Amino acid sequence: MSLQDILTTGTAPKRVAAGMGFWKSLFSALDTPVAAPSSVPADDPLAGYGPQAVEITPAIAANQRLILSTRRDIDLQELEALCDAVGWSRRPVRKVRRALDNSFLVVSLWEQLAQQRRLIGFARATSDHAFNATIWDVVINPSFQGQGLGRVLMEYVIAQLQQAEIPNITLFADPHVVDFYRRLGFVLDPEGIKGMFWYPS
Amino acid sequence: MSLQDILTTGTAPKRVAAGMGFWKSLFSALDTPVAAPSSVPADDPLAGYGPQAVEITPAIAANQRLILSTRRDIDLQELEALCDAVGWSRRPVRKVRRALDNSFLVVSLWEQLAQQRRLIGFARATSDHAFNATIWDVVINPSFQGQGLGRVLMEYVIAQLQQAEIPNITLFADPHVVDFYRRLGFVLDPEGIKGMFWYPS
Repeated sequence: MSLQDILTTGTAPKRVAAGMGFWKSLFSALDTPVAAPSSVPADDPLAGYGPQAVEITPAIAANQRLILSTRRDIDLQELEALCDAVGWSRRPVRKVRRALDNSFLVVSLWEQLAQQRRLIGFARATSDHAFNATIWDVVINPSFQGQGLGRVLMEYVIAQLQQAEIPNITLFADPHVVDFYRRLGFVLDPEGIKGMFWYPS
Repeated sequence: MSLQDILTTGTAPKRVAAGMGFWKSLFSALDTPVAAPSSVPADDPLAGYGPQAVEITPAIAANQRLILSTRRDIDLQELEALCDAVGWSRRPVRKVRRALDNSFLVVSLWEQLAQQRRLIGFARATSDHAFNATIWDVVINPSFQGQGLGRVLMEYVIAQLQQAEIPNITLFADPHVVDFYRRLGFVLDPEGIKGMFWYPS
């Protein structure tokens, strides 16, 4: 079953299935009406992660839950710690908040152990809400890399953008992740279209 | 005098100087307080074009004025006619309106002949309002191409984004305009960063 099938038929359970090194993604029907928070069982692992949350199953470790969320009220200290972990340069918190507020989509990946939750992955996208989206700041905590979580995170981002009917999904890939994105269906310079960056002279 | 000088010193007049094939751009100080519409003289050619409007001088033809504007309440029929003129495929008006409403920057270029005005150029940018902007839909009416108006339009777009302190300005260039953007200071695949587009499988 392809991601497209799932989005079209909307019959998949609210789970994402995981395997070592390869994730067979089973996305929830993202347009299914979501229960109001008051009706969510107290032991619902997705409670507090927002209406688009999905759980990745099985988790990597025992007692662990891995949850994808589109909530954008992320603690910026936690986000900074995640970006620090991959060696990104620090950015002013005020500007990061502004960027999140003005992103079309903000996706976070959480590890939940009992009542403790930890931000272990992130991505966001700018968009005109109609034709184009551009994905930025894709990151997975190095301790959680190599297990396919980056792929699941990106498939979730793509599913959300498809759900919003954005036809043109783009990104700018560092050289060492070009193959990663290629395996996800991203095409390099299609029809000779080139990514360009402006530098002040 | 470079564009950067002008933006830094803010001493240039509210005019853009034009020459055949090469435009020496003299941008207005975009952060200069703008007079309220009620105080604009009735014969002000920039009246009605919004607070960021600049005139390109000299114009190409007699009795002609060329004006750049950031107003986003563009008549969508006019915009469609412009896009038709360069052979772009038609897009649903409702989605175009949505895209304009959700663009960070919308720039239009107008030819004014007496009381008649005509849309002859366009560009827009999406952004997170903090770190990144991506420029889309850059177009000049073919009858007005080859006179440097594309360059002036793009310099105005860049100036607006610099004014908003967006450090990372990007775009995806079709093969035949890569050199055009290169001359404007855009760099292809800097440090091996590649533009990628997602295609549904």
